[in-house]
Amino acid sequence: MATTTNENRESIIKSLKGTGNTILDELNKGDNPSVSIPLRTLSNVYFDDSDQLIKLGNKKQKRAFFNAGQSKKFMQTMLMAAQIKELLEQNQPALSTRQLYYILKHSIPGLKENTFDDQSTESDPVIEDIEVMIDYLREQLNLVAVPKGVMSGPITIKDMKTDDVIDYTKMGTAGGAVPPSVEKDVLQIKDCSADYVLVVEKFAVWNLLNQQKYWKKNNCILLTGKGQPARAERRLLARFGKELKIPIYCFCDMDVYGYYIYSVYKQGSINLAFFSEKAGTPQAKYLGFAIDDVKRFDIPRSSWIKLDKHDIKRLSEVSKYDWFKKKEWQDELKKIKEFGYKIESDALVAKKIEFTAKEYLPHKIENKLFLD
Amino acid sequence: MATTTNENRESIIKSLKGTGNTILDELNKGDNPSVSIPLRTLSNVYFDDSDQLIKLGNKKQKRAFFNAGQSKKFMQTMLMAAQIKELLEQNQPALSTRQLYYILKHSIPGLKENTFDDQSTESDPVIEDIEVMIDYLREQLNLVAVPKGVMSGPITIKDMKTDDVIDYTKMGTAGGAVPPSVEKDVLQIKDCSADYVLVVEKFAVWNLLNQQKYWKKNNCILLTGKGQPARAERRLLARFGKELKIPIYCFCDMDVYGYYIYSVYKQGSINLAFFSEKAGTPQAKYLGFAIDDVKRFDIPRSSWIKLDKHDIKRLSEVSKYDWFKKKEWQDELKKIKEFGYKIESDALVAKKIEFTAKEYLPHKIENKLFLD
Repeated sequence: MATTTNENRESIIKSLKGTGNTILDELNKGDNPSVSIPLRTLSNVYFDDSDQLIKLGNKKQKRAFFNAGQSKKFMQTMLMAAQIKELLEQNQPALSTRQLYYILKHSIPGLKENTFDDQSTESDPVIEDIEVMIDYLREQLNLVAVPKGVMSGPITIKDMKTDDVIDYTKMGTAGGAVPPSVEKDVLQIKDCSADYVLVVEKFAVWNLLNQQKYWKKNNCILLTGKGQPARAERRLLARFGKELKIPIYCFCDMDVYGYYIYSVYKQGSINLAFFSEKAGTPQAKYLGFAIDDVKRFDIPRSSWIKLDKHDIKRLSEVSKYDWFKKKEWQDELKKIKEFGYKIESDALVAKKIEFTAKEYLPHKIENKLFLD
Repeated sequence: MATTTNENRESIIKSLKGTGNTILDELNKGDNPSVSIPLRTLSNVYFDDSDQLIKLGNKKQKRAFFNAGQSKKFMQTMLMAAQIKELLEQNQPALSTRQLYYILKHSIPGLKENTFDDQSTESDPVIEDIEVMIDYLREQLNLVAVPKGVMSGPITIKDMKTDDVIDYTKMGTAGGAVPPSVEKDVLQIKDCSADYVLVVEKFAVWNLLNQQKYWKKNNCILLTGKGQPARAERRLLARFGKELKIPIYCFCDMDVYGYYIYSVYKQGSINLAFFSEKAGTPQAKYLGFAIDDVKRFDIPRSSWIKLDKHDIKRLSEVSKYDWFKKKEWQDELKKIKEFGYKIESDALVAKKIEFTAKEYLPHKIENKLFLD
């Protein structure tokens, strides 16, 4: 399957060097050096209908050295780019953005200023600037976030950093942890015989299905991001989508949070539009829990939870999102509002402990009862 | 090493049956049936100085059937105990307490009442009552919470539910996920050659050490609960403490949250006193980051973070806890207050990326520079 590569590393170093050299040339010529950075504001985020992904537009901003309002940020950008390049050249381990902040935070000799004083308002935005500027994800720059998910099923991966080969049919009741980076220089998909990927919103549901060996009986990959997924699970699902070419189904709560989590896996999110382009999985389908399932499977009334004011407000908001504009979703959202209740995916045990694994999921998948 | 056993299951079923039969006898005799439940209120929680653990005292409350104020809760307790017993007898998979709530929540024929209407105020407290009543943890009753942690190092476990043998030296950059239950009927320690266990508060620090193969070079188990640990990591560390008989060191931030997380691993927590007795690790030592390390290792000023009002208030609170009453801790807390800054464990990369793995940890461990 996919072959691993360190090409990214070389390309990134080359790209960062290129940026640096251009700046140097401009300085030598007596010009005002600057970099051009794609805007990450809401006005430059759009939903690409044909790709079904949230994307970043073409608007850019200039950041110049000889500009009182931009000078500090310009220098921070240069410091950050130089540090990322150095860490890559030295083949250092992946770090968190906080660790990188600490590496770069220091006083400037002769000045009262620090290079950086705050992570969330200073160093993190500059990292994001560099990501979009050179068109690589932070994980490819060797910067990682905390992963959350676990998975099981007939897939074998090779960890290129440690040479370990991990067989996700042998990971016990724990399942195999999703690593902080799932990029190709770390994670190589060696082998996969799964017929589909089932992404489960909640750990409790994943845990029940995993114990029931659902993945074995149904020959699938069973993945959970434990609620709202971290970057690693989103990117992993995107790789599954692109490389395995098998169907991907999401199983979430029938409530606004469930819908939203599905849409984050599928289309991405507005506040991480750049990441979303590379970590969305447009072919993912919403398996459930869906409004028609309530009657179809005769879900007991004791499992229904009344919608509160906040739910109803969020339902209206979600129904205005471009990616929920399809008729099937508009119908679904309208029906939920009329129904007046939400239903959690964990509630299906009230039918029977084996109901989800033996009746619900097989019926939905066999009859292709999905929302897209 | 430890041999696995289903004895617990049999004992629990027996104990629950015993409770039920006693109630039946009382009913047949025309008595007012009742159960006696150890109190879980603050007034019945104490710090056991000799065991160095937070424990539940001996105070009990009676819950009777023929008592207007207790009747509903009595019946809920009986329903819950019967359901737990049935699930154990049927050898069902482990469930979350929310799933169990959904199984039990239903209308009562002929009445307008439901068995349970809320999880956090009704069914969860009753589960806790049953835990303390029969002196078994909910994990032993087959009820599990969401685990968070990962680990690596020279330890091999056998998952008794799946028969998988998991070697934590071969888990790649992900590390091996901690399963939701680490009880003996699930997790058997097959083999461990580690010299000590290093528990790391933060995932970013764990991730750096794991990539640097710290566990291999120093022959240890490297575990993180990703901040405040879940039940599974606390219980796993307790098992390591009891069964492996090797030193256990905690590496946290030098701030009140870091101290608190250390104390949760070591002594437990007040709000889960019953769990703490069984999931505390009294022999755990605080390796750092400690106030004397600032000078000892010449930590750059740019890594210091000024204590805010909230930090100072929490420092005073923590210094009054029984388990921080030892002179060494009182001195430490006093010195931090005087110093006026906190230092995060991830900040040590500012010294050098390999500083933590190659200098800090080996020096601290070799010279036994711990707080107890």
